[in-house]
Amino acid sequence: MTRSTAWSRLAALLGVEHPIIQAPMAGGATTPELVAAASNAGGLGSTGAAYLKPEDIVKHSRRVRELTDRPFAINLFVPPPPPAEVAPDRMLAVLAGYHAQLGLAPPQPPSSPMPSFEEQVDAVAESGARVFSFIFGVPPAGVLARLKAKGMVLAGTATTVREAKLLEAAGVDFIVAQGSEAGGHRGTFAAPVEKSLVGTLALVPQVADAVGLPVVASGGLMDGRGIRAARVLGAAGVQLGTAFLTCPESGIAPVYKAALREAKDDSTVLTRAFSGRPARGLANDFTEALRDSPDILPFPLQHAATTPLRGASAARGDSRFMALWAGQAAALSRGLPAAELMRALIEESERGA
Amino acid sequence: MTRSTAWSRLAALLGVEHPIIQAPMAGGATTPELVAAASNAGGLGSTGAAYLKPEDIVKHSRRVRELTDRPFAINLFVPPPPPAEVAPDRMLAVLAGYHAQLGLAPPQPPSSPMPSFEEQVDAVAESGARVFSFIFGVPPAGVLARLKAKGMVLAGTATTVREAKLLEAAGVDFIVAQGSEAGGHRGTFAAPVEKSLVGTLALVPQVADAVGLPVVASGGLMDGRGIRAARVLGAAGVQLGTAFLTCPESGIAPVYKAALREAKDDSTVLTRAFSGRPARGLANDFTEALRDSPDILPFPLQHAATTPLRGASAARGDSRFMALWAGQAAALSRGLPAAELMRALIEESERGA
Repeated sequence: MTRSTAWSRLAALLGVEHPIIQAPMAGGATTPELVAAASNAGGLGSTGAAYLKPEDIVKHSRRVRELTDRPFAINLFVPPPPPAEVAPDRMLAVLAGYHAQLGLAPPQPPSSPMPSFEEQVDAVAESGARVFSFIFGVPPAGVLARLKAKGMVLAGTATTVREAKLLEAAGVDFIVAQGSEAGGHRGTFAAPVEKSLVGTLALVPQVADAVGLPVVASGGLMDGRGIRAARVLGAAGVQLGTAFLTCPESGIAPVYKAALREAKDDSTVLTRAFSGRPARGLANDFTEALRDSPDILPFPLQHAATTPLRGASAARGDSRFMALWAGQAAALSRGLPAAELMRALIEESERGA
Repeated sequence: MTRSTAWSRLAALLGVEHPIIQAPMAGGATTPELVAAASNAGGLGSTGAAYLKPEDIVKHSRRVRELTDRPFAINLFVPPPPPAEVAPDRMLAVLAGYHAQLGLAPPQPPSSPMPSFEEQVDAVAESGARVFSFIFGVPPAGVLARLKAKGMVLAGTATTVREAKLLEAAGVDFIVAQGSEAGGHRGTFAAPVEKSLVGTLALVPQVADAVGLPVVASGGLMDGRGIRAARVLGAAGVQLGTAFLTCPESGIAPVYKAALREAKDDSTVLTRAFSGRPARGLANDFTEALRDSPDILPFPLQHAATTPLRGASAARGDSRFMALWAGQAAALSRGLPAAELMRALIEESERGA
């Protein structure tokens, strides 16, 4: 199959003009306005719905459908096995210092902040989304069969060839290959994280060789150069997250957008400090303070434990204690409105093609 | 400047037909036969001379010149500041267990194994090499001026934009941008390693935007897909190391070649276990045993301390205690003779160009 055939076949599967996906980003970045603008401009918008309650998934999707009649995607986290019992005392003591500094009430023992996955899936099934994408593993077979039967297109996230093969065996329609450059959570679920930080340029051809499905490249893509490179490497589509964070439609805090405008290629680190799972973001006081900390709680308890601190930090315009998820090419951010950005990506991706 | 212009201008600067560089790899991989075959086939062969005594650099280069009249490169390590005084006792105790297991005499306190850099430079100046490349920093201005005055082309290795700018300011002729996928030592010299593991796809366009010099992409490149992607990203040339390790002309041990043939995308780790500096290689018993060890000595003392163990391990065909440097796309190794590999890379790099 030629490159241009793979590209247009994935576009047809997604029901879009161009298989350029605005990445799902949990935590509020992917407003209905952002998702709809990406889809209206000819790509595919995605809602990062992992932390949304089922009723909020329904509301969010209704609003997206008011803003566009084009296809869009919804993404969920596959629930991890319940974490082992851990005493949160030492982490709470660490956080208490920051709480005192910001005048917050002392931190409380955390409980899982995640809504019921089954109920989230119910909401996705009724959302009108064309694509269901997921990360952190493989959902139960019944979930995939049910959404497939609704006519939805299924996409899993792989950080290694092994994970891509597991997803193919589970029956997904395409694979998002997440290179180590990517901002936000690592999707890794079947390898130690230190062995699964495979760069996009190395990962995409190996995944493309190993599976018979369309591969969507993600990680470090910000402009037409990255998109055209991904196509050369064998990708049938691309997914860009960080590139959309600085759009006016993105729901992140102004101080976070400002931090992205200052980012350099060597500004990011992998950290478990905010959620308990490794994720890439701009280094700040909190990532430095908790580097190598043995007290970090398992996901999602660390996420719950840091919620008040992250929230207060964002509300005060203080980036020191916020999760500033960003990929390694954040310095190439443009701050364009989402529709303009998507149109620019489409135009650049076709130059010399 | 168009892509094809940048490509042919770098070729002209190097004096080769195609700016495809067989990477310098210290430690014996880059035999005169490998270097000459890469150059004779139309690319640029490189000798990894960092651990070679000056007289061996002279001998090696004489042999290369017997085998080819085409340009070739020599690479050295820029000497680090002398390491702080450290007591090696705990590392020697760790190594003693492995020595006993292999029937070796007890390990001895290490001393620096590095030849005099100034004398190595003398040898490079007389070697007949057209290109002097280096890693781990910026050589003294006098060294660069002297080799430049001999008509040599100078290349420094950068893992971040900041490092590329430092090299440009020092007057090099081109930059090797080493992405995180690369096998062997990280070239990082002006950033914490954890922030400078920038994937090739993210690094190359950012470096190309930041400097006015030709940029050579390295890290994860194994075939025409990687080479063409690098060109799209803004590279004026490419450098491939792991791809040449499995050539019959490569000087690595048979058991190391066998390990490369089994490599997967998630087989490598970054480790300081062998030399004291972070480097990427296939995980094995030694990298696992020394993971996060606080007893690892600073470079180059750890290299000296592990030399007997690495040597005995290789001699016995036992890969457990050897440094198995490899990039993250080692699974795409082909095992072709070097000339055939270089010709294939040239042919593939031009497909659809």
